[in-house]
Amino acid sequence: YTPRDCVAGADFIITMLPNGKLVEAVAFGDNGFAGAMKEGSLFIDMSTISPFENGAIRTRIEKAGHSMMECPVGRTSADAVTGTLLLLAGGTQDQIKKAHDLLLCMGNELIDAGGPGMGIRLKIVNNFMSIALNALSAETAVLCESMGLSLNVAIDMMKGTPAIRSHFTTTWQNKVLMGDLTPAFMVDLAHKDLGIALDIGNKLHVPMVMGAACREIYNQASGFGFGRKDWTSILVYLRNMQKGNRNS
Amino acid sequence: YTPRDCVAGADFIITMLPNGKLVEAVAFGDNGFAGAMKEGSLFIDMSTISPFENGAIRTRIEKAGHSMMECPVGRTSADAVTGTLLLLAGGTQDQIKKAHDLLLCMGNELIDAGGPGMGIRLKIVNNFMSIALNALSAETAVLCESMGLSLNVAIDMMKGTPAIRSHFTTTWQNKVLMGDLTPAFMVDLAHKDLGIALDIGNKLHVPMVMGAACREIYNQASGFGFGRKDWTSILVYLRNMQKGNRNS
Amino acid sequence: YTPRDCVAGADFIITMLPNGKLVEAVAFGDNGFAGAMKEGSLFIDMSTISPFENGAIRTRIEKAGHSMMECPVGRTSADAVTGTLLLLAGGTQDQIKKAHDLLLCMGNELIDAGGPGMGIRLKIVNNFMSIALNALSAETAVLCESMGLSLNVAIDMMKGTPAIRSHFTTTWQNKVLMGDLTPAFMVDLAHKDLGIALDIGNKLHVPMVMGAACREIYNQASGFGFGRKDWTSILVYLRNMQKGNRNS
Amino acid sequence: YTPRDCVAGADFIITMLPNGKLVEAVAFGDNGFAGAMKEGSLFIDMSTISPFENGAIRTRIEKAGHSMMECPVGRTSADAVTGTLLLLAGGTQDQIKKAHDLLLCMGNELIDAGGPGMGIRLKIVNNFMSIALNALSAETAVLCESMGLSLNVAIDMMKGTPAIRSHFTTTWQNKVLMGDLTPAFMVDLAHKDLGIALDIGNKLHVPMVMGAACREIYNQASGFGFGRKDWTSILVYLRNMQKGNRNS
Repeated sequence: YTPRDCVAGADFIITMLPNGKLVEAVAFGDNGFAGAMKEGSLFIDMSTISPFENGAIRTRIEKAGHSMMECPVGRTSADAVTGTLLLLAGGTQDQIKKAHDLLLCMGNELIDAGGPGMGIRLKIVNNFMSIALNALSAETAVLCESMGLSLNVAIDMMKGTPAIRSHFTTTWQNKVLMGDLTPAFMVDLAHKDLGIALDIGNKLHVPMVMGAACREIYNQASGFGFGRKDWTSILVYLRNMQKGNRNS
Repeated sequence: YTPRDCVAGADFIITMLPNGKLVEAVAFGDNGFAGAMKEGSLFIDMSTISPFENGAIRTRIEKAGHSMMECPVGRTSADAVTGTLLLLAGGTQDQIKKAHDLLLCMGNELIDAGGPGMGIRLKIVNNFMSIALNALSAETAVLCESMGLSLNVAIDMMKGTPAIRSHFTTTWQNKVLMGDLTPAFMVDLAHKDLGIALDIGNKLHVPMVMGAACREIYNQASGFGFGRKDWTSILVYLRNMQKGNRNS
Repeated sequence: YTPRDCVAGADFIITMLPNGKLVEAVAFGDNGFAGAMKEGSLFIDMSTISPFENGAIRTRIEKAGHSMMECPVGRTSADAVTGTLLLLAGGTQDQIKKAHDLLLCMGNELIDAGGPGMGIRLKIVNNFMSIALNALSAETAVLCESMGLSLNVAIDMMKGTPAIRSHFTTTWQNKVLMGDLTPAFMVDLAHKDLGIALDIGNKLHVPMVMGAACREIYNQASGFGFGRKDWTSILVYLRNMQKGNRNS
Repeated sequence: YTPRDCVAGADFIITMLPNGKLVEAVAFGDNGFAGAMKEGSLFIDMSTISPFENGAIRTRIEKAGHSMMECPVGRTSADAVTGTLLLLAGGTQDQIKKAHDLLLCMGNELIDAGGPGMGIRLKIVNNFMSIALNALSAETAVLCESMGLSLNVAIDMMKGTPAIRSHFTTTWQNKVLMGDLTPAFMVDLAHKDLGIALDIGNKLHVPMVMGAACREIYNQASGFGFGRKDWTSILVYLRNMQKGNRNS
């Protein structure tokens, strides 16, 4: 069966493929399904691909007079088996409503990410944060263990601080996200502490490339005048960087 | 008054200074207090300094026949005012017992970090993780916003994933810390997703130096044979690196 | 005219396009030229694209019974105008011989990179080194200027050292490339000096993300037992990393 | 003999020690020599230490009514044996004149770095550049070899480009250092090429933390409006960063 054969008469077409080129090939390649979609059918891509690829594919589908939304998933492969995935829906209200019951066969929680393309963006953002946090946690754990400190003691202690409780839901909520940059903990002190941690790491051969990169962020933020502001102002500094500092 | 004058007859001597050189100067410099400590008194350093400096100072104090522990603090400057700091005690059981009531005037929770020098190590580890996490969160937030995705939507979603819930207390507990590296989510897939996120960042000018460093960690871990193992195995990879890979 | 039209009767087909997808589209897309190549003609791609894309395109061309080589170019856009480009030929001896006179219309120096695909690899390697060196030089220059040292004085001095004279053609030739790792300058001393430079940079807000990453390389190399070896042994350390340390 | 004993009657006092704390201890510690310097004598520190430490020591020496200059050295330990070191003199004209003949016993070339403190700055700048360049060259070489390209071929080719010939003395001289940022090679194209190189590195497990950091520099420079300017404008971008962008 070719992709084209498979979609004959289908109300829903679902793809979940390793990369964007494959999604494109299945839809628009030789015997791709795009030309054979039934009137009123809905194509749901569940792959984790670039939002730019997602957008390009949706544009082509819509130009051909058809409808597409995306719905990448979260959680683990075990959840795929038990149908308890987290569904990150990116589409119009109508599309999400239409796909709702079908999607809930695969997952048990659906998040409306806010429109077409937002589902895949949400997936990318969550995965970036989770994946990078995993490596940062490992740098921290190896720093801890190489100094002879019990990792369990450290984890127990960090349960009470942003180190484990997250900044998004703690420090940021009352400071930078409220527009308050008066210091609870100053950027310059954070910068100093990073220097101490890295000096230890460089004595004990702890691999800390993320920590080393981080020190430079605080270094620059301080140079841009954030030194005596709250550490959560790093968000403002990086926002300014992204904008080419035009609004700073 | 010189430091030496100040400690005359004191049962407890407490310092909380910006860096290790200053602690050293106050203790051992001209008119330093070390030579004037009363028999049976206890010196408690509450500064955030290098564990190596901490150790060197303790050694000198003990050689002079006196007793020293450290007790750096956590939380904010507001907590210093209200006496609700988190106390990270590094000392012998006897030292901590002796200092307990005094320290509790400044804080409302005391953690026994596991011995002399462990209090300052705990402080360094927590601060490194918190401070670096703050910057990583900011990279993520700017990636999110620059793609047009609502940061609130992303935070709400990440409340259910390790991105906010932490790896230390979730994914790691059932996998790497149990010695189980069978993949719930493979290193190679995480590596791929990082590449997608960084490509977006490099199109939208999102500053992602920590993310870029992180991609190289996964790259190397994969090269060392962790590609098809669970992503929490990054901890094992970095432990091996720290040991010069002697045990891998 | 379509690409297919353009190649009718041509002995040579030359492309020089911004990315690999475009080369692929021009060759194999709708009205691509691949199907219309004349018997015995030679396709020369001069684009700077991924070697993997280059290889995939060559494979398809050859499967179709045709011949392809690549020849990306070096130097500047001014040299393109005057026909003095540097030609980086990747092909069989026969292909290069056949294309030689034509290529020399565009450039005045042709390097045989060693076989099909090697021309584009050579381009990538040279560009990576040149582009990264440019940024590293800028980090160094800003470190210099921010300390109040004349950049001209520094450049004059570095003309006599590997800082400007390159390691490839100086230190490496007599040490690591000869298999001699006895120290002329030890990794651990280099590591120490990097720490000093970065501490200065972090006081003066010099942006040094490459320098910070570099410190971690020396840190790890030292942990892997290269600390008292010659600094050129960093090559051996990184080779081992790339191999997953299997040969170390 | 204590340091104090050693300098009795000496016209010149020379130190060459592993770090600044040791220089300080030898000069000002118990039995330090500072108090015993002869009227009109000159203290020459040849250690590689922080310029900040160097400045602090010189200030104390001068406050005590004595004279100090620094003269760190370049080249290798073999040159120390044969007296062919490169001397990086930081001092007043009078100091350098006075020390000239003595210093030339150890080296065969003396550079006047431009005043007190400039000798050590020059040493730091040269060492930073040389040491970081060594690691960057190794990343490049491993990228080269892992793609199956001969390192010798690459070195031969790069002998004709800034990759080996340096930017300081080639591209920069006619562009950024002349204030000309019209593009011979655009930042955005350099940025693209870095992305290709890193994608290869991330497929072949080449360790490229410096390259990864570098990509983010070009990414940000482009975001700040340098994308279509000459690649040498990275110097301007980093200068602006160091100044907190106040002059951009």
